[in-house]
Formats: sequence, C-alpha cells, structure tokens
Amino acid sequence: MANTLNIIKIGGAILEDPQSLQSFASSIAHQRQPMLIVHGGGRTASNISERLGIQPLLIEGRRITDADTLDVVTMVYAGLLNKKLVAQLQAHGKDALGLSGADMNSILAYRREVKTIDYGYVGDIEWINTSKISMLIRADIAPVFCALTHDNKGQLLNTNADTIASMLAEALSEEFEVRLFFGFEKNGVLYDVNDDDSVMSSLTFAQFQELKSAGQIHLGMIPKLDNAFYAMLNGAKEVYIGHVDALNDLDHFSGTKIC
Amino acid sequence: MANTLNIIKIGGAILEDPQSLQSFASSIAHQRQPMLIVHGGGRTASNISERLGIQPLLIEGRRITDADTLDVVTMVYAGLLNKKLVAQLQAHGKDALGLSGADMNSILAYRREVKTIDYGYVGDIEWINTSKISMLIRADIAPVFCALTHDNKGQLLNTNADTIASMLAEALSEEFEVRLFFGFEKNGVLYDVNDDDSVMSSLTFAQFQELKSAGQIHLGMIPKLDNAFYAMLNGAKEVYIGHVDALNDLDHFSGTKIC
Repeated sequence: MANTLNIIKIGGAILEDPQSLQSFASSIAHQRQPMLIVHGGGRTASNISERLGIQPLLIEGRRITDADTLDVVTMVYAGLLNKKLVAQLQAHGKDALGLSGADMNSILAYRREVKTIDYGYVGDIEWINTSKISMLIRADIAPVFCALTHDNKGQLLNTNADTIASMLAEALSEEFEVRLFFGFEKNGVLYDVNDDDSVMSSLTFAQFQELKSAGQIHLGMIPKLDNAFYAMLNGAKEVYIGHVDALNDLDHFSGTKIC
Repeated sequence: MANTLNIIKIGGAILEDPQSLQSFASSIAHQRQPMLIVHGGGRTASNISERLGIQPLLIEGRRITDADTLDVVTMVYAGLLNKKLVAQLQAHGKDALGLSGADMNSILAYRREVKTIDYGYVGDIEWINTSKISMLIRADIAPVFCALTHDNKGQLLNTNADTIASMLAEALSEEFEVRLFFGFEKNGVLYDVNDDDSVMSSLTFAQFQELKSAGQIHLGMIPKLDNAFYAMLNGAKEVYIGHVDALNDLDHFSGTKIC
C-alpha cells in the first residue's frame, strides 16, 4: 500500500530487558514501510520511583503524578527507555528520533481537570502537530514517542501511551493510510482471560459494547479497546491488538483485528 | 550576518533551578538567529546517582561511567534536564527539539580506549551528521543536545558537553557562519581566579599557550579552553566564553573573546 504508516504501540516491559529490546528493534527495523513508535514504561518508572523513596500511587492503572513523580517519568520515559530504544533501532539500520510532546511542539495537551481524583501533572491531548511529525516521516526518520506531552506553557504532562498512539493515528490519517498496532503481553483480545489461546480474530464495535455491558471484557482491557476503537472510528485504516512478538510481521499480524 | 548559527553551551546548573531555567529560556528564545544548544548536567547526575545508591566517581572532572552510571546520565541528561529545557523554550515561543547523539544518528562516537584510566561508557566523537542537524535548523527548529552520543551498535556513550559543542561548531561551519558561546558560572577567562572582575576581554592561542606553560590558567579551565580553541581553529567564526547571564545578548556578549 502506498503511503502507509505503521504506528506501533509497545509497553515498557519489552524495553527493560536488553535481549527483548534487541530482538524487538531488530525485527521492527527491517519493516520497509514508514513507522512511528509509541512506548510506555510504567513498571520501570515505579521501580526507579521506589528506589528514590517516592511511593508510586496508581488508581485504576493510572499514575498519580505529583511533581517528584513527573521528574521520575521524565527521566525514565524520555531518557532511559526512549534513548535505549532509539540507539537499538539505529544499530539495526532504522533511523529513529526520540520525542516527547514538547519536542517540536509535537503533542499539545492540557492538564486534566480535577473532578473526583486529582491525577496531578497528567495531560489530555488537545492538538497534534501533524506537519512536523510528517516532516520526519517523509525524511525517512521513525519518530519514537514516549508518554509525555506538554501544555506549551512550560509544563510537561504525563499522558497515557495508548491514548497518544490512538490520537496520533487519528491525526496522521490526514496524510497517511494508518495501520495501528497495539503490542502487549497477551496474544490479543481473549474470550477467556485465563486461556491465552482463546484469541478473538476480530472484534466489532457492537460486539465490544455487548461484551462490555455483559462484563465479559477484562477491566484492564477496556481503556486499550476504547483507544483502539477511537482510532478505528477516526480515520485509521486498520487497527490490531496482539502480542509484541507478533510485531515482527505486520503484514500477517496474528492478533485481534478491530473492525 | 546572513546564515549565522549561534551554538550555545550551558552547564547543567542553570537548568536545575526553575527560576534560572525560565529566565535563560526566555532570554535565549527571543534571539532571532538560528541556534543550537548543548547542555551538561553533571551535578544533577551526581545527586540522582547518590539517591539511587550509586557512588559517583570523577577523575579530573571526568565521570567514570559504568553501566549503572550510564543509566543515570541517560535519565538525567536526555530525560529530566533536556525535556525541561525544551518545554521552557516552547513556552517562550522558540521551537526546539531535544536530542542525544543516537537520535537521527546525529553524533557518532567510539568508546574511549583504555590507556591508564578506564572511563567506562565514555565516547569520543567520530562523525557528526551535519545534513540531518541542518535540516532541523533550516526548518526553524533549535536542536538541544544533551551530553550523550552513541556508537551505532546500540551503545549510548557519555560525552563531554564542551567537546560536543566544539565539534558541532566545527562540523556546522561547513554550512553556517558559526558563533560559539560557552556560558558558565564565571564572567569569562580570569587573570586572577579569585577576582571575578579580572576578565580577559580576549585571549589568543599564543597567550593561552604561554599562560598554560606558566601554570597561570586554572586547571579546570584548560579543557574548556582547549575546546574553544579547537572550534576557533576549525571553522568557527567567533568563539566566546562568559557568564550564562550574558547569553541574553549574543551580539554584545560580555566575556572573553577567543582569537
């Protein structure tokens, strides 16, 4: 497909272990189509946080980000994990550039309003700088985004990596045929959370709504699926969820296709 | 001057304090000519290192960089300090992009050979990707380099920020009229290290050699001056050393002019 852009979201776990990082970088670097990567890193952030004597606090999987915690995630996401991944991609011949949303003013966000929970320095995305990001892609550079945005008033903001991937997919659909891949530790969306082989080959929005009402979707999967459907309903050509190891073959990705 | 590029090296101290960071970003953001910034961050790195239980070890001002220390400097230089500076520059209307040498394969280095001291993961610069860095500058984006390079085999390397600034000045002189500014905590090169007002308005290479032989240059200044003269002898149009506060007026920079 001409003008295809593969947007690949990975968790932080794959970046923590040198061997899995190398194997991911090596397999992904050989894809010929333009790509953009978004990565998390919550587990490393919690680990470094604890070592610095800052107790991590998560509510429903979302990190409460006070000023000290923001420093930790800025170190871990934009520094440690992002640069290790970029260095590995370069080593495997893929030109890459690590970014936070502040870099090139690429992702503008506003600090989330306090309703019942004060998440601290957490951002919801307001605008994506499609032209600057496209400039990189057209120069054959793979942007590698970490889970940080900014408010253009000097404040960095912690922002969910799945949401970044999904909203990048929406914005970049103006210029590319976007395929969005969520790579995680499961083989896809499962019929039975205890059976790793019970992968749904596809999932429609109607099915998702039904399963959600029936309480048959694992709670932790709901935000990821919300992001997947958001992208699908807002311009992405194809959206998939599957195991990170399956990312070595994007054209025959084994996982769940979002329809 | 048409086609001028201002390369500005600052230490990490200015980035640590929110007020001095804001005031630096605000004054530098209003310069009209293209710019590139290189920053250090050794003091913050030592501080975070100690908090993580990793004892910092410096020999003649150079950090011995074992694997754990490399992780710390990657977090602090490429993450914490780099992104805070980029966010502040954006807030003041200057489009900026934070980089390590791995990003866009912009600075290639090799791990320093062990002679008498094993510096660990420390890199000496081999090649600078002038075309990619120029692409950013021509797109009106200020590259902001931290003190990290890579070997293009997957290894990040800790590299002196003064040296990075100096070698970027050399490489980019092919395409720009480069002015290089070293901002630090003194008002310039001093006749008397105990008298902050004894600033030399200029310093020639012959004078530097004489003062060095006579032991009249403060030891800590020698590597900085070596870098300054290297740039001056290798293409830079103008090189200055002075106080970071003087960086608010590059056209009338008060400090020592390297001749």
